[in-house]
Parts: sequence; C-alpha cells; structure tokens
Amino acid sequence: MSQEKPQSRREFLHAIGSLGGSAAVYQAMVTMGLLVPKDAQAAINKQRWQASASQNASANKPTIAILGAGISGLYVAYELKKAGYPFYLIEARARPGGRNHTVRAGSVLTETDSQQVCQFDSHDELYFNAGAARISQHHQHLLSICRELKVPLQALVNDNPGAYLHSTSAFAGQPVRGREVQAALRGNIASLLAKAINANALNGEISNVERAYVLEVLKDFGALDNSWQYSGSTRAGVVPGSGGLTGEVAKQALKFEDFIFHPRVPFAANFAQTYEQAATMMQPVGGMDKIAYALAEQVAEESTYGAEVTAIRRTTNGVRVEGKVGKQVGAIEADYAIVTIPPSVLFKIPNDFSTQAKIQIAQVQYAAPTKIAFQSPRFWELEDIYGGISWTDPEILQLWYPSGGFGMSQGVIVGSYLFGGEHAARFANMSPQQRSEFALAKGERVHPNYRQNLSRPVSVAWSKVPYSMGGWSSSAPSSILQKPDGPFIFAGDHLTHLQGWQEGAVISSLNALANLASMVNA
Amino acid sequence: MSQEKPQSRREFLHAIGSLGGSAAVYQAMVTMGLLVPKDAQAAINKQRWQASASQNASANKPTIAILGAGISGLYVAYELKKAGYPFYLIEARARPGGRNHTVRAGSVLTETDSQQVCQFDSHDELYFNAGAARISQHHQHLLSICRELKVPLQALVNDNPGAYLHSTSAFAGQPVRGREVQAALRGNIASLLAKAINANALNGEISNVERAYVLEVLKDFGALDNSWQYSGSTRAGVVPGSGGLTGEVAKQALKFEDFIFHPRVPFAANFAQTYEQAATMMQPVGGMDKIAYALAEQVAEESTYGAEVTAIRRTTNGVRVEGKVGKQVGAIEADYAIVTIPPSVLFKIPNDFSTQAKIQIAQVQYAAPTKIAFQSPRFWELEDIYGGISWTDPEILQLWYPSGGFGMSQGVIVGSYLFGGEHAARFANMSPQQRSEFALAKGERVHPNYRQNLSRPVSVAWSKVPYSMGGWSSSAPSSILQKPDGPFIFAGDHLTHLQGWQEGAVISSLNALANLASMVNA
Repeated sequence: MSQEKPQSRREFLHAIGSLGGSAAVYQAMVTMGLLVPKDAQAAINKQRWQASASQNASANKPTIAILGAGISGLYVAYELKKAGYPFYLIEARARPGGRNHTVRAGSVLTETDSQQVCQFDSHDELYFNAGAARISQHHQHLLSICRELKVPLQALVNDNPGAYLHSTSAFAGQPVRGREVQAALRGNIASLLAKAINANALNGEISNVERAYVLEVLKDFGALDNSWQYSGSTRAGVVPGSGGLTGEVAKQALKFEDFIFHPRVPFAANFAQTYEQAATMMQPVGGMDKIAYALAEQVAEESTYGAEVTAIRRTTNGVRVEGKVGKQVGAIEADYAIVTIPPSVLFKIPNDFSTQAKIQIAQVQYAAPTKIAFQSPRFWELEDIYGGISWTDPEILQLWYPSGGFGMSQGVIVGSYLFGGEHAARFANMSPQQRSEFALAKGERVHPNYRQNLSRPVSVAWSKVPYSMGGWSSSAPSSILQKPDGPFIFAGDHLTHLQGWQEGAVISSLNALANLASMVNA
Repeated sequence: MSQEKPQSRREFLHAIGSLGGSAAVYQAMVTMGLLVPKDAQAAINKQRWQASASQNASANKPTIAILGAGISGLYVAYELKKAGYPFYLIEARARPGGRNHTVRAGSVLTETDSQQVCQFDSHDELYFNAGAARISQHHQHLLSICRELKVPLQALVNDNPGAYLHSTSAFAGQPVRGREVQAALRGNIASLLAKAINANALNGEISNVERAYVLEVLKDFGALDNSWQYSGSTRAGVVPGSGGLTGEVAKQALKFEDFIFHPRVPFAANFAQTYEQAATMMQPVGGMDKIAYALAEQVAEESTYGAEVTAIRRTTNGVRVEGKVGKQVGAIEADYAIVTIPPSVLFKIPNDFSTQAKIQIAQVQYAAPTKIAFQSPRFWELEDIYGGISWTDPEILQLWYPSGGFGMSQGVIVGSYLFGGEHAARFANMSPQQRSEFALAKGERVHPNYRQNLSRPVSVAWSKVPYSMGGWSSSAPSSILQKPDGPFIFAGDHLTHLQGWQEGAVISSLNALANLASMVNA
C-alpha cells in the first residue's frame, strides 16, 4: 500500500462502493466529514430504498396502497413514482397536505361543529399556515424535497427581540421589547457572577489564571461597565429620538426584580435557544402548502381525493382497502398498504392489524393546538416589528407577525397560537366568533390599536378537525409501529421523535420505504 | 370642558393641528403612543420640510444643485421632486447609489489601481452587496422609502447559531457551531452563578424571597440540570443521527476553558445582541441597489451621471458648480447646493466653503473596510447553514452565506468582510488575485471543501474606490456641518451617529431639507 499513490476522495468512495454498497459509502462519507447526517438511520434508509428500487428496476413490482396524502403519504408516493412502482394514494380530504394546511381567500376550515370560509383579500402574501409553519435549517430531509421540487423558501423570523414580551402581572401590564428583557437578563446575571468572583466566592471553581479572562467574557456577555455593573445598554434599545443627529442614549434598563417573579417572561426570552426553534428557520414563499402541492403534482395521476377509508383488510396475498367517495363505496386491492392516517383517526377504522399494533395505535395521545389569524394593516411594522413573535399571557400566548411581504399595506397576523393544555382546550370549545372576540380582547393588551385594525378572523382547533383530530402525538414513538405489521407498514411524524414536524413525517416515510424494500427483496 | 363629550383621537389630533402645525401633531402623536419615533429630530425635520413644501406650493421655488447621487443625494432629489422644486442631481459615477453598490454579472469594480469585471452567472440571486448590506427593522426612515417605492424586502439572516465559530487557536483549530458556544456560555455562566448563590456568597444582593426565583430563571437561562450544573443540552446541537427514529442526544458540551482564553470566540457569539445588528435585519430582494435605482428612477430627468465636480463656488446670489463629463467642462448655477460628496473626497475639491466648514471637512477620518465574494455551489446549505455569518481569524473575520435563493444550486458567499484596521489595510494593498488566494487559504480552515467550490472572486477595498475613498466616517458627526454654510447645505451619513448606515444618510437628508426650508421661508 505504501507504494501506491494516495487515492482521491472520489476513488476511495468508489472503491468502498464496490465493496460494501451504498450504506458503506454513506458511512465512509460521514467519517470523512463530507456529509453532516441529520438522522443517520433515515439517510441509510434512503440509500437502502434507492438501492432496492434500482435493483428491482426491471422486475415486476408489487402494488402499494398509500393511505393519507399528508406529507408522509405524499413523500412515499413521490418516491414510489420515481422508482416505477404501481400505487394508489388515497386521501379523505379534498386537498393534499393534511396538517400542512395553508388558508387563504376562500379556503374552507372545517371542524366537527363549525365551518369557516376565509375572508382574506386574495393576495399571494395574505395566507395563514394553520398547521405546520416552520422549517428548521437542519431539517435536511424535508429541505431536500424543497430543493428537488424547486419550492422557493424564505427566512422565517422566529425570534425577534424587537417584538414584545407582555405579562399582565409584570411591568405594570405594559409590553416591553424582547431586547429589554434579554439585555437585563444577561446584564444582571453577568454582573452578579462578576460580583461573586471579585468577592473570591468562586476561587475553587475559577483559577487565578482564568479569573481575568472570565471577567472580560462577562463584561462583553452582559454589556457591563468598567466596574462590572450592568447599568443599562443600547442592546436594550435607545431612547426615542436619539441615535441619529444626536448620539444614542440607552433606554432605561429593566431591573432584575422587575421580571424574575414572572417566570414566563424570562422563559419566553429563552425560547429561540432550543435546537428546533433557533435561527435559521424557514418557510416556503406564499404558504407552507407549496410543499404539499409540489409533491401532489408529481403523483396526481395516482391520487384520489375525497375518499374516506372505511376498513383496512388483510387478504391472502396482501391488503384490501375499503372506502367511500361521497355515498359511493368501493375497494382497492394491493400487495402492501403504507398507512399514514394519524392514530387519532386510525384507531376508529375497522382493520386487520395485529392485536399488538392495535394496542399501540390506541395508546397514542394527541396534543390539541389552536391558532387564530386576522387580516390587518401592518401597523406593527411602523412600530419597528418585522416578523417574529410577541409573547403574552397564556390565554393566547403568542402573536406572530408575517415574515413575508414586508412593507405591504396589508398582512396576516396570527392572533394566538396555543400548543395544547387547558387554555387551548378552552379556546377550542369556543365558537369561531367567540375565539375572535377572545383573541382581540387579550391581544389589545399588547397592541392598544389592535381592534381597529384586525378583521376577517379565521381559527383552527386541530382536535376538532376531521381526519386529523389532533395536532401531533405527545406519546413516545412506538418502536413496534416503526416495523411492518404483515403487509401493513406505518408512517407519520408520530413514529419519530420529531412529532409535529414535517421532517418527522419524511423520516418516517424513509423508514416505511426501507421496510418495504426489505419485504420486496426478502 | 367637563361637559364636553370626550374627543376621539382623530378629533383631538385635528384640533392640535389647527393650533400648532404638524410638528405639534407629531409630538402629540408620540405622547399618545401612536408613533414610535426612531429619530425624533429627523421626523420633525420631515414634517418641517413637508409643511414648507406645501406652503410654497404655488410660489417661485429656488433651484437646487445636489452633488452626489448616493442614498443621501437621491433621497433629497426625490423629496424636492415631490415638492415641485427645480433641481440638478450630479453624480460622478455612471450609476446611482454610491456605497450602495450591488455587483452582479458584468458589473465593473474600479479601484485606484485595478479594475475587475464580475464573472458571476447572470441570475437574480447571484449578486454581492459590495457596500451597504443590512437594514435594521428600526431604520424607519429608510424603510419608509422602501414602502413608498414598493421595494420588496426579505429577512436577512444576520445571526445564525448554526454557522461556525472558528479560531485557529481554539478547539484545536476546528470550527464549532455558534450554538455550541452560545449554549456553553450561558450554561457555564448560569451554573457558576447558581453555585455562588447556593454557597450564600450573594446574600447581600439576592434576598431570600428572590433566591428561589433567580435559581429557576438560571436553570432555564442556562439549560441547567436539577443540581444547577450545565452538563450539556440539545441547545448546543444533537449527536448526528439522533433525533429522528431515535431520541435526541445532546452533542458533547464545550467546556468554559475551551474558549474563554480566546476572547474573539465568545465576543463573536454576542455580536447580534447589539441594537443595530439584532434581528430582524432585512435586505431588498435581489440586491441593495434596488433602493438606489428605485429612487434614481423617480429623478432620472434631473440627473446627470458621469459628471465629476471640479469646483464648488459661491456667487452673489447662490452657487456655481463646475464639473466635467469626460473631457467636456461645464458649470451650473443654482440658488443652493446640497453637498453629499463624502468628506474623504470633498476636501480635495476647490470650494468657497467657510474656513470653519473646510476645517471640519478635512478632519473627518474614514474607516477602510474590505470585502470579497465568490460564486459557489451552496455546499453550506447541505451542512445545515442557511444564511448568517461564520466567524474566523481576524485576517478574514467573516464568511456570509446568502439569505436569499435558499435551495438553489449556486450562490454567492462573502469570503471576508473586514471593517477596517490593520488586516483590512493589508487586504486592500493586495491585488484582486492575491486577495482571492488569501481568502481561499484562510477560508478553507473553516470549510475544508472551500477551494474546490469557490470561483469567480470579486473584491472591494473602499479606501481605493474613486469618489468614495473610504467606507464610512469614524469621526463624531460635526454639528457645524449639520447647519447650512451660506448657500451650501451638507448631507451624508457622516453627519449622523449612524455612520455607514443608509438610515444615517436619510436622516441627514431630512436635516438638509429642514435647513433648506428654514432658508427658503426666512
């Protein structure tokens, strides 16, 4: 070997490829630092599926019934199509996407006891992502679909320190800017620690060598003055009118005791530190459903919408899916079924799953998130808020400002987003009119000019949306359902630890495809 | 009064308006919380200018010579046009914008000793903002121009914790993700402070009542465990391959001592805490010069490009501006001149300014920033980096990833941005070829696959760009030049505390217009 000339990366990968197949190539690429795997198993599953698809390119292929045209079902269908498999894609709703649902002028939002028609003006930027609304930059499996199908993406401003933090019980009920809390949090924490260090209280933790460095780090971290006090900083914002012809004057600093007794205030300020919520977040330009429709277009020929599954049966050699379109009943036969119907709906559909699978499906608990949106002139942009989220009392919790269409006269503001729990349950139980009034009454505590501006409410309580009956699984993913149950293969974000994220749906689809490949090649 | 029914807001403002003029209305609106003034003086100047313009609507108006079609001159021209003033706009370059300069396929970048022609592919998203590249959400005067002229804006990802922090001397020279440093900074600071509090070292600072609250705040702030230790967190990222079908496993935490001795590392992590650099930052879709061209289009008729000013003279009743277009010399006469030529260029032009003004102009010091950009496949997006900035050694300091065109195959990466100082001076002194080689050699420490991907370099050293001869004033704005000097009125970002920001240019223009109004109405 020592006599041989060094292999180029490509030669090396080619050699590995001949020896060990694509999974080995993948692993070698990871080792060489050429790939940053997001979910290694998902990437391996993708390789496995693609290898199987190309191996079976000219063979007779089994027929697949895909149940549900959410992101998971759509993506499975798209991959089967590329691989030349015969399949049916069956969806109960009249549209693709499932909880990927963008509402715009004329969209219908159906719940078990109400129906709303969206009254927004018709405009590309006037839309409301009623379900999935965020994509993280590390959601590479979903992002690769956007890349492949050329779905234009834009940055979603998830964390905006110029937006408000409001709590009825803090700051005399007045909203403050997120940056005021952030600056005060960092400043006070850094200053207290500097004090302890200077008082020799941490000599056991911080050596003499480290001490000067740590103090310098604290000064910059907290914007401390030369005596390591936090006496305010322009990080918190500036006095209106300063900073142009005259010098910047820092806004008066919040004091630690102004907000530490109101835990939601500092906690909201930490929100965007989490791995899933940190920048860069993205969204498709013009609505999240651009992804669903891009996939749906690829498999339009094989898709049936408005077809409700009424039974999922096992046959001698495969599956039989019974359903109805309107009043017309029918059935299809296939070799395998890939079942992406959410457990919250699936458990009620008569089926021939194994007892073990039935039990697992019945056990999945669902979160019941709610949202409401309004059309409004973009008054918030005149208050220096472009995109992002204001946080307020838990009854409505969040206001989202649009991250697209900056500077337009009209925009869509999300007037509340609740992830679940008691407040969401109360909101879900209201009529659409009551929800609107509730959101306006609470929201005008943050924006005094709220009610004059907002109109055309449209709301959603996912626990009451037919064919979803919930927002996302709040249970741990079932490792049993991650494996095939005879001819039944399950998919959906509930089978991953990314519940409620489209990335989870795609990862589960890759798992389903790898399961299919194993059975087809067995 | 007590018998009167309460006035509506509008009635009240109307009443004030009849009494005190528009400035009084403005002040009342501020007091009522209806306006959040960015720069109160600038807003008042705008009101003053508009009042004067409408007062003089049908009167004979003086003729104005505007020298320089950067943002400041363009905006003055645009306002004069709206008010029906006769004016000339004279610009030495062949294009509008000045330091608002977007480089794309075929753009020419001229320095005193070199000329480059940009070789990027021709595409809307393949551009390089060689000068101004960021707009803050509180730059309301600039943003109102974008609103008025319908310049589409998008979020600019300025701070991306998924981008790298790299230092040759830290982490064994390996780049780490920004989020790793951020999580470790917060975690270690919070944990040390909790230790000091629990050891009763801060009893004088934190009361018994506060203690439990502060500890809970620290736990969330730093992602501490139940014993207030920072033992790692998914905030720092997850182990590759975890977090999909299997649970998330936090990446191994950086230790405080891994980076505190390398001050630039934690300081870079704090960059986006500042008022000017914090989210939401924006950029025009397709290049910063969309603003310059939108303004230029409004005043095209009155504009002369390629006209170099050779002397600025005072006449009996006004001003005489001498210049040349190519070899052809000429002069225009006007009642007033609004001079936006930067002091770095202006001090060499023969003029009849007062001695006091001459001295002020000669004293302005200029920062000498440099930048370089390359076209490249978007390999960084496959490494989970969408937009934002990686920080590295001070020789090249920053790599900027594009915030537009996510998912496209090609993009433009800024391979270095230096604000000034010794490193920028060294970079400026290199030939364009040397700069490219230097940026590649340093940049591949951050991205090992850098050199294979990057091509078509184009660089700028603003200290060597004719008609700019510098990036921005590093001197305090001259209050003398903020006032008229006979018939000469000065404008430009150097006259504000927002040096180097387009918002400063617009604020200075409003000051110039208010100065003009005072003289016209005197």
